[in-house]
Amino acid sequence: MSQLQPVLIDGQWRSSLGQESFTATNPATQEALAEKYPLSPWDEIEQALQSADRAFREVRGWPGEKFAAFLDRFADESEARTDALVAMARLETGLPIEPRLKNVELPRTTNQLRQAAAAARNGSWTTPTIDTKNNLRSMFGPIGPVAVFGPNNFPFAFNSIAGGDFAAAIAAGNPVIAKGHSSHPGTTRLLAEAAHAAAQATGMPAGFVQLIYRTSHHDGARLVSHPLIGAAGYTGSRSAGMVLKEAADAAGKPIYLELSSINPVFILPGVMQERGEKLAEEFTASCLMGTGQFCTNPGLVVLLAGERTDAFIQDVAKRFSSAPVGTLLGGAVLKSLTEGIEKLRAAGAVSLTPDTPPSGSGFCSPNTLLRVDGKAFLRTPHALQTEAFGNASLIVVAKDEEELLGVVERLEGNLTGSLYTAADGSDDALYDRIVPTLRQKVGRLLNDKMPTGVAVSPAMNHGGPFPATGHPVFTAVGIPAAIHRFSMLQSYDAVRPHRLPAALRDQAPHGELWRYVDGRWMTGDIAVSS
Amino acid sequence: MSQLQPVLIDGQWRSSLGQESFTATNPATQEALAEKYPLSPWDEIEQALQSADRAFREVRGWPGEKFAAFLDRFADESEARTDALVAMARLETGLPIEPRLKNVELPRTTNQLRQAAAAARNGSWTTPTIDTKNNLRSMFGPIGPVAVFGPNNFPFAFNSIAGGDFAAAIAAGNPVIAKGHSSHPGTTRLLAEAAHAAAQATGMPAGFVQLIYRTSHHDGARLVSHPLIGAAGYTGSRSAGMVLKEAADAAGKPIYLELSSINPVFILPGVMQERGEKLAEEFTASCLMGTGQFCTNPGLVVLLAGERTDAFIQDVAKRFSSAPVGTLLGGAVLKSLTEGIEKLRAAGAVSLTPDTPPSGSGFCSPNTLLRVDGKAFLRTPHALQTEAFGNASLIVVAKDEEELLGVVERLEGNLTGSLYTAADGSDDALYDRIVPTLRQKVGRLLNDKMPTGVAVSPAMNHGGPFPATGHPVFTAVGIPAAIHRFSMLQSYDAVRPHRLPAALRDQAPHGELWRYVDGRWMTGDIAVSS
Repeated sequence: MSQLQPVLIDGQWRSSLGQESFTATNPATQEALAEKYPLSPWDEIEQALQSADRAFREVRGWPGEKFAAFLDRFADESEARTDALVAMARLETGLPIEPRLKNVELPRTTNQLRQAAAAARNGSWTTPTIDTKNNLRSMFGPIGPVAVFGPNNFPFAFNSIAGGDFAAAIAAGNPVIAKGHSSHPGTTRLLAEAAHAAAQATGMPAGFVQLIYRTSHHDGARLVSHPLIGAAGYTGSRSAGMVLKEAADAAGKPIYLELSSINPVFILPGVMQERGEKLAEEFTASCLMGTGQFCTNPGLVVLLAGERTDAFIQDVAKRFSSAPVGTLLGGAVLKSLTEGIEKLRAAGAVSLTPDTPPSGSGFCSPNTLLRVDGKAFLRTPHALQTEAFGNASLIVVAKDEEELLGVVERLEGNLTGSLYTAADGSDDALYDRIVPTLRQKVGRLLNDKMPTGVAVSPAMNHGGPFPATGHPVFTAVGIPAAIHRFSMLQSYDAVRPHRLPAALRDQAPHGELWRYVDGRWMTGDIAVSS
Repeated sequence: MSQLQPVLIDGQWRSSLGQESFTATNPATQEALAEKYPLSPWDEIEQALQSADRAFREVRGWPGEKFAAFLDRFADESEARTDALVAMARLETGLPIEPRLKNVELPRTTNQLRQAAAAARNGSWTTPTIDTKNNLRSMFGPIGPVAVFGPNNFPFAFNSIAGGDFAAAIAAGNPVIAKGHSSHPGTTRLLAEAAHAAAQATGMPAGFVQLIYRTSHHDGARLVSHPLIGAAGYTGSRSAGMVLKEAADAAGKPIYLELSSINPVFILPGVMQERGEKLAEEFTASCLMGTGQFCTNPGLVVLLAGERTDAFIQDVAKRFSSAPVGTLLGGAVLKSLTEGIEKLRAAGAVSLTPDTPPSGSGFCSPNTLLRVDGKAFLRTPHALQTEAFGNASLIVVAKDEEELLGVVERLEGNLTGSLYTAADGSDDALYDRIVPTLRQKVGRLLNDKMPTGVAVSPAMNHGGPFPATGHPVFTAVGIPAAIHRFSMLQSYDAVRPHRLPAALRDQAPHGELWRYVDGRWMTGDIAVSS
C-alpha cells in the first residue's frame, strides 16, 4: 500500500494531518492510479492560513520585482519539468500530449506566468492615480492571502498553483493557498514542486505558496470566509461554486467565480448561404476540440429555419457521428454530461446523432448533436440552457426573426456570444437587432469566429454576467485586468512624501510606469511646481 | 387630511398603488410634517422595473454626450431650486442651511453631477483597451437599470436621485430606480422634480429616472435581485444592507454597499507633545461636525498612555461638554446612537462627559466622549467597535506600543485610518510599525488630517474592506472609478470595424479620449499599418 502524498504547508512538504485519502483515475482506462492523496482536515487549512498570513506580513510592501522574479523562475522551473508534467497530465486527464499539453497548454501557462511577472515588475497594473491639487494619491495594492480552487479541464493553464488566478494573485503580491482539483493531483503536485523550488530560489517566505489537494465543501466554505483570507478564485461546477460564494459573500470576502457558460453562436441566413459547409466544419471542430471540455465551448447554436439550415444541421450531425470520440476528463464529467443531455432531451431536444456507446475503455460519451425548435426553447428556456459540459451541443432552430430574437432575450449570462454574418451585408439588419440585447449578456462578443480560443491579452474578457461568473466587471484572463481581482483600492490623503509607496511619489520609480496624474496618463516624474 | 404624494414611475408623477403611508419628522421639533408619502407595493416596483428596462433598451448604445446633457441640466435644475431644496432639507434633517446645506452640500452635489457629465462626455472612464495584434478590443459598458438606496445623512450629496451613486449610474448610461430615504422624502421629491424636468428637457425616455419613497425590506430584496436589474447601490445601516446583499449575491447581481465605519485616528506621542492642545480642538471639531453624522466621522481614537495623553483627553472632554449639542437626523438615529453608546459602556467604556439630557425639543443626545483601556479593547474588540453613529467617540488608551499594535491588529474594515505624527520624526518608528497592518484595513490612509472631508477626486477612495463596504476594489466617491461599479466589461473579438463602438475604432471619436493601445496610454487615432 502506497503512502499518502504530502501536502505543501508553511514551506514544507509535510505528511497531511488527514486520514482520508483519494486517488486519481486514468480516464483513458478508468483505472485508479497508484498514488494516494490526502483529504485535508480543517486544522491543516488553519495552519496554511496562519502561514499565509505570516508570509503576507513579510511580503507586503515588497517591490513588484520580487514577485516577478518568483513568477519568472516558476515559469523556468515548469519548463524544466516539461516531460514529467505532460506525461502526468496525460495520465490524469486523457488529454493528448501533442499538441495540446506540450505545445499549447504548457507554453500558454508559462507565457501567462511571464506576462504576470512583467506586470508585477512594471507596476502599471496598480493604476497609480495622483491628484496634485488635493494631494490625494491612490493605487491598487495586495489584498492578502488568496485561496485558489482550480478546475478539471486545464491541468496547467487554470491549475490552482500555476494558472491564471494563481499568476494574478501572486503578481498583486499575495500568498496563495491552492486547492488542487481532485482529478489531476499528480500534475498539481509536480507544478507545486516547481513553484516551491522557485519560491526557495527567489527567497519567498515559507507560506507564500501552499497546496492542499482536497477538503470537504464545509471546510472550503470556511476557508473562503476566514478572517485571514483576502479573496478567493474558483473555477468549476456551479453547485460547488455557489456553496463557496454564499460563505464568502456573507463574510464580505471577495470571491471570483467562473461557473458555467454555453456560449451561444448565431449563424445568420446570409452567411449560411455563402459558406454553410465551411461553417459546419469550423463549428464541429470548435465543439469537439478537447472533447468539448472548454469553458468557451459552443454549446448552443441558434439558426433561422430554412433549407440551407437543414443542410447545415445534417452536415454537422454527420461530422459529429464520424468524428473520433474523445476521452472525457473523468467519471464525474461523464456523469454530468449524460445528465445534461438527459435534461435537454426531457425539455424537448432531439438527438441527431446515434446513441451507440463508444467502444474502448475510457470515459467516453458519443459526440452528441441535439436539436430543438425555437418555440420549445421559448417555453422552457431555463432547462434548454442546461450546460452539457463535454462533446455535446444543442441547435435551436427559430422559425423567424421574431422567434430568434425571443431566444436572445431569454439567454442567461455567458462568457461569449458569437455571430457569423454574410460578407455581402445581407445579415447586417438582423445583426443589429440581435446585438444590443446579446451584448449585455456576454463578456466577449465575436464576429465570424468560434469562441474556443482565449488569448491572454489586455483586451480579453474571460468573464460575463452571472451565472457565467460572479461579477461582470472582472475578467479571469488578461493582464493587467485579471490582477485587479486580487487587490484593494488604497488611497493616500496628505501622506508625507517619504512614506508614500514608490509608485505614488512625484519622482517615478522608473520610466515605464504609467500613472494617471491630474486627469492625464503619463510616464515619468511629476513636474514639481515651485 | 392631506393626499398621498405621488411616485415618479414611467416618466409620470402617479398616485401610488400603495395604501400605506408615512410622514417625515422635523428633527428639531420632533413633530410630524404634513405631507404623506406612500409605501410602494411590489406591483409598483415591478412597473418601475419594466419601465427602466424599456428605457435601457432605448438608451443603450447612445453616446455619452446624451447622458452628459441630462446630468448638466439636472445640476442646473437643482441650482434653480436652491431655496426650496435647502428649506425642505433643513426642515427634514435639522441640518443648518448655512453653511452646510446651501454653501457646502448642494454645491458639492451639483459639482459631482457636472463631473459625472464631463466623464460621460469624454468617455475615458470606459477604459478603451485595444490589442491590435489579436484584434481584441474591450471597454466598460452600461450594466442595465440600477437601484439606488440613499442614506439619511446627506440629503443632497448621497441622495438616491441626485447623489454619488445616482450620478455614477447615469454617467455609465443606466436608468436609475431611486429608493429615497424615509427621513427626507420631501427633499427627495424636489430633487426628483428637478431630475424629471432635466430628463424631459434632454429627451430621456420615460423610465430613465424613477422614484419610490419606501418599500418593505422584502420587496427591496426582490428589487436588487430581479432579473431586470443590472446592479444596486446602497448606503445605510448595516442590518438593512445585509438583507439586500444576501438577496443580490444569491442572484449574482452586483451590489455596492457602504455599511459602517468608525474611522480610527491615531495620535502618536511625539505629536501629542508637539501640539496636543491644537489637536484636541481639531479632533473635537471633526467629531461634532454635522453632529457626528458623517460616514467618515472619527469614532475611535487610539492613544498611548501618558501625562500628555491624559491632558488631551481632559481637554477634549471639556470641549465636548461645552460644545453646543447638535440635532440628530431623526428618532431612529437617536435610538441607534443611544444603543451604540450603551453597548460600548457594557463592554467597559466609561463616559467622560455628563449624561445630562440636552434641553430643547429636538432629537438630541449629549456630546459623548468615552474611554477604555487597551487591555479591555483586546478582550472585547468586536463590541468596542460598535458604531455609535452621531456625536460620540471612543478613546482607547494603550499602555504601551505592543498593546497599541494589538489594537491595530483587531480593527475591522474601515473607510479611513488617520495618523498624526510629530514633525521632528520622533513618531516615525511607531508609524512604520502601525501602517503595514492598518493599510490593509482601510480604504484611505491620512496623515495629520481628520477623515471627515471627502474630496470628489479621481484619487479618492471612499471605500474599504468589509464591513465598511461590500467590496474593497471599488470606491463610492471619485470619478471615473465610482462609475465602474455600474458597468460591465465588454470585449469585442474580431468584430468588424463598422460595428465597433466609436471608442474602439482605429479612428478616435475625439482627441481627448484616453485609450490603452498595445500597452500604451494614448489619445488620438491608432496608426493604420498598411
